[in-house]
Amino acid sequence: MEFKAKDIAALLSGVVDGDPEISVNNVSKIEEGKPGTLAFLANPKYEHYIYTTQASIVLVNKTFEPTHEYSCTLIRVESAYDAIATLLQMYDDMKPKPVGIEQPSYISDSATIGEKPYIGAFAYIGRGAKIGNNVKIYPQAYIGDGVVIGDNTIIYAGVKIYTGCVVGKSCILHAGVVLGADGFGFAPEGDHYKKIPQIGNVLLEDDVEIGANTCIDRATMGSTIIKKGVKLDNLVQIAHNVVVGGNTVIAAQSGIAGTTKVGENCVFGGQVGIVGHLNIGSGTQIAAQSGITSNIPEKSVLRGSPAFDYPKYQKCYVMFRKLPELYGQIKDLEKEVNKLKSE
Amino acid sequence: MEFKAKDIAALLSGVVDGDPEISVNNVSKIEEGKPGTLAFLANPKYEHYIYTTQASIVLVNKTFEPTHEYSCTLIRVESAYDAIATLLQMYDDMKPKPVGIEQPSYISDSATIGEKPYIGAFAYIGRGAKIGNNVKIYPQAYIGDGVVIGDNTIIYAGVKIYTGCVVGKSCILHAGVVLGADGFGFAPEGDHYKKIPQIGNVLLEDDVEIGANTCIDRATMGSTIIKKGVKLDNLVQIAHNVVVGGNTVIAAQSGIAGTTKVGENCVFGGQVGIVGHLNIGSGTQIAAQSGITSNIPEKSVLRGSPAFDYPKYQKCYVMFRKLPELYGQIKDLEKEVNKLKSE
Amino acid sequence: MEFKAKDIAALLSGVVDGDPEISVNNVSKIEEGKPGTLAFLANPKYEHYIYTTQASIVLVNKTFEPTHEYSCTLIRVESAYDAIATLLQMYDDMKPKPVGIEQPSYISDSATIGEKPYIGAFAYIGRGAKIGNNVKIYPQAYIGDGVVIGDNTIIYAGVKIYTGCVVGKSCILHAGVVLGADGFGFAPEGDHYKKIPQIGNVLLEDDVEIGANTCIDRATMGSTIIKKGVKLDNLVQIAHNVVVGGNTVIAAQSGIAGTTKVGENCVFGGQVGIVGHLNIGSGTQIAAQSGITSNIPEKSVLRGSPAFDYPKYQKCYVMFRKLPELYGQIKDLEKEVNKLKSE
Repeated sequence: MEFKAKDIAALLSGVVDGDPEISVNNVSKIEEGKPGTLAFLANPKYEHYIYTTQASIVLVNKTFEPTHEYSCTLIRVESAYDAIATLLQMYDDMKPKPVGIEQPSYISDSATIGEKPYIGAFAYIGRGAKIGNNVKIYPQAYIGDGVVIGDNTIIYAGVKIYTGCVVGKSCILHAGVVLGADGFGFAPEGDHYKKIPQIGNVLLEDDVEIGANTCIDRATMGSTIIKKGVKLDNLVQIAHNVVVGGNTVIAAQSGIAGTTKVGENCVFGGQVGIVGHLNIGSGTQIAAQSGITSNIPEKSVLRGSPAFDYPKYQKCYVMFRKLPELYGQIKDLEKEVNKLKSE
Repeated sequence: MEFKAKDIAALLSGVVDGDPEISVNNVSKIEEGKPGTLAFLANPKYEHYIYTTQASIVLVNKTFEPTHEYSCTLIRVESAYDAIATLLQMYDDMKPKPVGIEQPSYISDSATIGEKPYIGAFAYIGRGAKIGNNVKIYPQAYIGDGVVIGDNTIIYAGVKIYTGCVVGKSCILHAGVVLGADGFGFAPEGDHYKKIPQIGNVLLEDDVEIGANTCIDRATMGSTIIKKGVKLDNLVQIAHNVVVGGNTVIAAQSGIAGTTKVGENCVFGGQVGIVGHLNIGSGTQIAAQSGITSNIPEKSVLRGSPAFDYPKYQKCYVMFRKLPELYGQIKDLEKEVNKLKSE
Repeated sequence: MEFKAKDIAALLSGVVDGDPEISVNNVSKIEEGKPGTLAFLANPKYEHYIYTTQASIVLVNKTFEPTHEYSCTLIRVESAYDAIATLLQMYDDMKPKPVGIEQPSYISDSATIGEKPYIGAFAYIGRGAKIGNNVKIYPQAYIGDGVVIGDNTIIYAGVKIYTGCVVGKSCILHAGVVLGADGFGFAPEGDHYKKIPQIGNVLLEDDVEIGANTCIDRATMGSTIIKKGVKLDNLVQIAHNVVVGGNTVIAAQSGIAGTTKVGENCVFGGQVGIVGHLNIGSGTQIAAQSGITSNIPEKSVLRGSPAFDYPKYQKCYVMFRKLPELYGQIKDLEKEVNKLKSE
């Protein structure tokens, strides 16, 4: 489909600065822009590309002032970043969505399925499972006995949800996610370990998105809980009885050990590790690869392993890099002092 | 089902301290205890909850001496932790277990299946595979050609076991586990890499539990071996030709590079990394996020990356946090010494 | 099958040093060598095993000079390491390979399948997918709508490839790989996050091997690109819009955040983390567990988190381990200087 600059501007409440009749049929990144595509410029770091891009149309903030010549048509909007997100959403909405029930699939007689489902081939829906309306369950997904899935949720291919877990509305679970495997609980018994049965479940509230191959373990008793609006990236590990507060965002390959409570609106970088039985205050930000080993007050900003105050960590690390010089300075001082003493 | 305090006490060889006739129908955590449930108090850190919990019955160590009023009935046992593990096991044993062979599933004509199997829909069992008695293979699991699985083992949904691997008795493999993918072996050849075929296998001994999405690579030649009683958490990486000794426990997201031998009864925290071709002595404990780059003697306790003696690491890290002050002290000393010299 | 020493020597352009008629039917590691097997000695660290191995034949470098007695027959070759790789390849080539289309599988009417395919049971091939010649798609793999897969590529069990992704020729994707899940893109909106649709794809060039349960996210726009000859180990995370240059090798559990460009011929250890929007020069080597937070020039060798020059890091870390002593030295100096001042 072709869209004219003037029509896109109207959609986005923007203003055309250039040819209102020029048309595009796809989006591109500004540094790779081709004729017939629309790009955007939000990050000033990328401004130089606008003077050479081949994209036909570029979305810019209304405050943008060019410093060189350029050949594209601009559409000036309040926020180029928000506008491109809106356009991507429209583009995404136009893509055909799967519907219906493909065969062979396995749907237990005692499962209930809402309206307008998509159930892919080789998907499995266990005894007593309750699937809401407009739910999409892609091929080879496993929905265990008694699992509940809310309206409008998308379960991608090969997701595995163990018995008794509960998923809210408008959630997205990417391929390979595992919800509800047994928590890692063993008690020493003589020279070996005895398994502690894990009889709880996992509870995802609404609007949660979980990245590919991420694992969330079932609680020993009660629930491991991921609250409304949480976003977990790929390959994240959430242990048994953890609670992650609303709208917290956790980047890839981070792990949270058992029974730790994470507050709301936290942001964790990638490969962060948090030990068990802690409280992490709301609004906490943790730099990538940090390790948390103690309770954390609200709105902390942390780095290191074990982590402490971010700016202080930066200062310490600068010093760490100077340690050989520091050592030299101490040696010199010792010599000077010995000389002074002998005088 | 309802259970009375006096009956639970009898089961656990405990003593009722309160109302022997009060009954419960579920378990709960002491901090979330509701009427009609049984909770337990093992960790003294949680003692304050016993004075406010709504749980009807609380299991406590027989030595427990309350310091405030409380409203629940106590059952005093030798070890509250062991007792709750016993109860959870009973609870778990009462849950219905899947049996039979669901359709469609794919079972090669040359595979042999033991007594009382569960084989879920869309499970795949390859040519010449040998499945023991009472084995449970959940939906969408893949059992490659020639794989051997011992009695009473549970293979959860979507586990993938490559050709020729061997799994012992009473093992548990959680969803998404991959056993026997090719080891990461490449030889430089001109400007690119040539794959070194990996013709060995993976061998799990008895009583091994493997967490969700954990990967254990097949050996180049011979076997990658996980010995009796080993417990691996989720998202762990075990490279080709590694040997993990009996009853070793490894937390989530740890990785062990090729050909390293880990002793018995080791305990590794999460996100630990161990380079290849090392020997890690039995009884070694490694703190989370540590990195091991050299051979380790028995019963070492380690932290850091590269890791060294744990208490020494703690002392060094305390100093690391003081580096800016240390730097200031050195600057001050230099000034003082220069002043002394000029006098 | 039995092979005689003289025949193996002829195959490998080697020379028999011992009994040319002795025969073997399997390969083994030199430290576990059994009669009737062939082992190899490439790493001098393992030389002592040759004097006790029970292997019937050992491949050695032609320069090998024994320092003790040994009982095996030697085959001397230019490079024992290359020779064993050649033999393993031959052994691997002789193993039976699956062919044909198993049932039930799901192949969309609009998909096109090349010559001599293997499509395992419960595999799913979406609308408009294009599968090349000699492609092997193992059971329970998911090939989304419009996916393109080049000739001779192997897709192991349970791989999930989202809509619109492109895989080159002669690639190997191990079990549980996820290609094309949504990039982790969210924009704050009031008190929660709004998803930014990810409409790009993943593009793997030829000769790429991807380890088990590794995740490569689709681009926001355009492509996440893995160039020719790249080898990724297990449980690696590649975020949206990343480009990994040709013949780069990345060990297990490493992660690269969004839009970072990695050059050619890089080698990264395990558990490395790289933040987003960076350029990593070609030929860069990064030690395991390092963290990269800034652009990196070509041929850098790095360690630490944040990482810097490898030998310098080693020196700093030696000093880190001496920090308590350093602190003592400073305390002593302060005392001495105070004494001098008071004199």
